[in-house]
Amino acid sequence: MATRRTISGFSNPLVKFLRSLREKKHRKREKRFLAEGLRLLTDARECGIVPEMLVMATGRDPHPLLDALEDAVAAAGGEIVEMDVDILAKVTGKDNPQAVAGVFAEFDTRIANVDRRAAPIWLVAQALRDPGNLGTMLRTGDAVGAGGLILIDDCADPFSVEAVRASMGAIFTQKLAIARWDEFIAWLRQDEGQLVAASLRDPTDYREAPYAAPCFLMVGNESQGLPREYEEACDLRVTIPMRGRADSLNAAVAGAVLAYEALAHLDRS
Amino acid sequence: MATRRTISGFSNPLVKFLRSLREKKHRKREKRFLAEGLRLLTDARECGIVPEMLVMATGRDPHPLLDALEDAVAAAGGEIVEMDVDILAKVTGKDNPQAVAGVFAEFDTRIANVDRRAAPIWLVAQALRDPGNLGTMLRTGDAVGAGGLILIDDCADPFSVEAVRASMGAIFTQKLAIARWDEFIAWLRQDEGQLVAASLRDPTDYREAPYAAPCFLMVGNESQGLPREYEEACDLRVTIPMRGRADSLNAAVAGAVLAYEALAHLDRS
Repeated sequence: MATRRTISGFSNPLVKFLRSLREKKHRKREKRFLAEGLRLLTDARECGIVPEMLVMATGRDPHPLLDALEDAVAAAGGEIVEMDVDILAKVTGKDNPQAVAGVFAEFDTRIANVDRRAAPIWLVAQALRDPGNLGTMLRTGDAVGAGGLILIDDCADPFSVEAVRASMGAIFTQKLAIARWDEFIAWLRQDEGQLVAASLRDPTDYREAPYAAPCFLMVGNESQGLPREYEEACDLRVTIPMRGRADSLNAAVAGAVLAYEALAHLDRS
Repeated sequence: MATRRTISGFSNPLVKFLRSLREKKHRKREKRFLAEGLRLLTDARECGIVPEMLVMATGRDPHPLLDALEDAVAAAGGEIVEMDVDILAKVTGKDNPQAVAGVFAEFDTRIANVDRRAAPIWLVAQALRDPGNLGTMLRTGDAVGAGGLILIDDCADPFSVEAVRASMGAIFTQKLAIARWDEFIAWLRQDEGQLVAASLRDPTDYREAPYAAPCFLMVGNESQGLPREYEEACDLRVTIPMRGRADSLNAAVAGAVLAYEALAHLDRS
């Protein structure tokens, strides 16, 4: 049975709790994150992932997808919270009576739980700092049929509202793992897996390279790129043409160009 | 000869002017925009584009690239302004004594000034709302050797601080044009040019499509995609594989995947 309650005061501790989930330190302490919007929550539901708590406005218009969400949360024994639209606006930052938010338990992100044979392509991001880039990589991973995204070293928090939004629901479909480099490379070398990065060190043309599944495509930090040691640990270094003045692509763009190229090769083989 | 002056008060009208350039309405009124950071300003200088006004901190450390900037501004008869580091922080939003900013005249963005034969690839964005996506498309355009970016309908302002920063200097290398759809399509059809978009309407596989220069690669609004009428006006509609749950890519990613594919085809032909 679902718990139902209605919040009518700004000072309710639940409002404070929900707002606190916009900050990383509170998310880590609570091991919870926030996803907003009917589309994102519906994506989650269709993947079988239901929020522990569903937050909606009291005066909202009925909507069949909202009803489906409510039913799913109720069936899972979750909590359904209604609040005045002006209080909801404080939580979501949007003055929209149709706004809806869900509180989810953070996923298990241990790399030991990644099943590398589940997909031909995996994306790897090293010290990626922009939550928009991180969410975009999840979205690209979903599009190319990747298994998930492995975050190496100090990346942006994948459970931030911005990253979750940029993922367009892929946070619920892509496996997410977080590891230090040493931990990642030790795990990778326990079994088969090709580590690939864009690099200027004796690289192969990215259009001609021998991609092999499971293929781990790694991109580096937005301003530093990959550390030399990481590039040297790669099985395959590839080069993407740069015809202009700039010497690099946006990190999420580089990952996508590589991922679509690898996909085309792996489809052929 | 350059004009030189030192600003020591927060209330100086120039400080207000510089801050105002962070807002679109003021940029449009002044026909000026702000670019920040030594790297970006050096990129501009190396492209032969010098700010009308260069703004620096009084107590900065010497730097050969800053000297080169000062010399270039002086030679062009521009203005060099020094201010206390705490006042500069109010202008740039960064508490960094090495911060530097330049005020540039907005470029002429009339589509009539685009020389389509100057490059094999052109990027076209329709109602692109995110300044980060817009800047990223400029950066990608530079990387593929595109001629520039044509903005159709109501896009984000390419002269915003965010778009300029995301372009990583490509705002100074890529031709930028702004046009309504009717104006763009009339201009395009005056001469040869292939209009291409990702589409689900009887498309060709994007890996097999007959790209032809000058090739105009168009991406649509982040949430709506392209209007049907625009898709129907295309010479070539292509499809990019979507293997997951999502039905679209991030707009800047879609543009990059198409642009790199077109580049490989046009290189071969």
